[in-house]
Amino acid sequence: MACFTCKACGKEYPAAGLQYRCMCGGLFQLKMTGMRPSLSLGEVTTPILERQLDGLTLMLKFEHLLPTGSFKDRGARILVSALQQMGIREVVEDSSGNAGASLAAYCAAAGIGCTIYAPKRTTKGKLRQIHAFGAQVVTVGSTRDDTARAAAEAAQGTYYASHVYNPFFFEGVASFAREVLFQAPRRPSHVVLPVGNGTLLLGAHLGFQRYRDMPKIIAVQSANCAPVHEAFHGSPPQPRMYTVAEGIAVGAPARMDEMVAAVRESKGTFLTVKDTEVKAAVDQLARMGIYCEPTSGAAVAGALKYLAQVRKNGKPQPRVLVPLTGSGLKKS
Amino acid sequence: MACFTCKACGKEYPAAGLQYRCMCGGLFQLKMTGMRPSLSLGEVTTPILERQLDGLTLMLKFEHLLPTGSFKDRGARILVSALQQMGIREVVEDSSGNAGASLAAYCAAAGIGCTIYAPKRTTKGKLRQIHAFGAQVVTVGSTRDDTARAAAEAAQGTYYASHVYNPFFFEGVASFAREVLFQAPRRPSHVVLPVGNGTLLLGAHLGFQRYRDMPKIIAVQSANCAPVHEAFHGSPPQPRMYTVAEGIAVGAPARMDEMVAAVRESKGTFLTVKDTEVKAAVDQLARMGIYCEPTSGAAVAGALKYLAQVRKNGKPQPRVLVPLTGSGLKKS
Repeated sequence: MACFTCKACGKEYPAAGLQYRCMCGGLFQLKMTGMRPSLSLGEVTTPILERQLDGLTLMLKFEHLLPTGSFKDRGARILVSALQQMGIREVVEDSSGNAGASLAAYCAAAGIGCTIYAPKRTTKGKLRQIHAFGAQVVTVGSTRDDTARAAAEAAQGTYYASHVYNPFFFEGVASFAREVLFQAPRRPSHVVLPVGNGTLLLGAHLGFQRYRDMPKIIAVQSANCAPVHEAFHGSPPQPRMYTVAEGIAVGAPARMDEMVAAVRESKGTFLTVKDTEVKAAVDQLARMGIYCEPTSGAAVAGALKYLAQVRKNGKPQPRVLVPLTGSGLKKS
Repeated sequence: MACFTCKACGKEYPAAGLQYRCMCGGLFQLKMTGMRPSLSLGEVTTPILERQLDGLTLMLKFEHLLPTGSFKDRGARILVSALQQMGIREVVEDSSGNAGASLAAYCAAAGIGCTIYAPKRTTKGKLRQIHAFGAQVVTVGSTRDDTARAAAEAAQGTYYASHVYNPFFFEGVASFAREVLFQAPRRPSHVVLPVGNGTLLLGAHLGFQRYRDMPKIIAVQSANCAPVHEAFHGSPPQPRMYTVAEGIAVGAPARMDEMVAAVRESKGTFLTVKDTEVKAAVDQLARMGIYCEPTSGAAVAGALKYLAQVRKNGKPQPRVLVPLTGSGLKKS
């Protein structure tokens, strides 16, 4: 049976227990790898398409074509498969939408009861989707951090299937790295990832580590909410404001230190993008027939900003891969 | 260069011309096969999952995971690739939403100007998607038939990229048949298809014919709008009413006779489902983590109705495949 260990003190915990972080405050990692999922909702190896934007070449990985419309299906599939194998019957989770929809779908497939805490502001299409899967939805407060607190409270009595705390989720997301390394015609030298709670960043990093093949990770935050960017660069904290990129609007991410360390290890960097740049990227993609949500636009805008700088410095363009993390169909 | 021939009188027409049906009134077919698409928006071989509903086993084919969220991408990809190769710069089309979204996406990818006529009632998520792809949207009248007339008028001066009249569209949809025959672990004996204008039915039939391997086609219409069902069974016409299955709400389909002949040739049949059955099927799928639109629910409800009858007659359950034609994310 799998167990969790504390990254800070090394203490072991059963994976099926109610503890979602160590008594010492440390965060969990998984002591076991290579779990085989028992559940499927029609996952595919997501396509990679090369496209030109602003005269720059990007490899776009279509994570938004996963079953519920976001990359979160990678994590939820493995997490809920593990829950099913451990006999868990009921879970809680908090999410701005995509993780919640994904967890609700796989819980439905597994026959596991599911309650999702979401901020009131959450996009209606995502809430409707979560409802359809038969999950209970509790809308609380106005920020992701409010809902995280509410879910953590509920988690005192019910298993916390958190995409932030639960190591199985990152284990699932690690499959992204495998596809990036082995599916693309040429391995990318850089991967540009949108960063909020760090699900994709830390999951991808875990996967790249496992293959001992680490592209530079360029982490993108919204200029309106950039705590990890600030921590990475040691720049003064700015006020947290609303951003259209709701998937990465996280003011106080739990795994901040891990994210900083992961990007450092990859010899990458953090940068921020404005909402106007996010929207422009989303529009530019749509005018090419590619329909994704603002959080994906943030990553693309970040990649273009990074590459424009490289070009300005007179250096050759590196091979950059950007995941499109969520579907445009979830809008409003 | 490809050309169209009239199915009624055999007269030939250039595929790049403004004529979308024969001067004699006959409908076109394509005189050439095996076109290679020049465009891609990340199409995949859509997964087939076996699931139990009401104790009956269905092979569900996840067409809703195609790039724009519906099977129409098969047709639009080939049609717009052909248009691009023929140098067409501007098209019109009419659609309740999915075909319009699909055509708009591939036109965006090809740099072809696109105007979509849609009924006022069309689901907002679909209209938003069509807008995002940069297509012009003209909402006309309240029924699919009204918009078809408006588009046909516009088509006097602009190429009519119709999913009903243009043979390239059916040529594209034929790839569905190839996957059904060669991808499933066991070839299905029956394929249950939702039927409005007959895009999927006639495209699939074309593909099965080409492989000389024809499963029985069970064609499903809404009980609220069942003109082809009535023609097939020779039953008296009922009034056309609103149905939640908007993708098959077509009161006067142009290719009615072809549809009747195709289902007859396959030794299949037509049946109808009520809106309550459609909604129940959509809910049942969602509670398994599968999120599709009502038109897909109609096909599943039809399959369950057909199989329940087989079971009642004491016969063994045939191997039935049902496509889930459109994504639940396009709701409202």
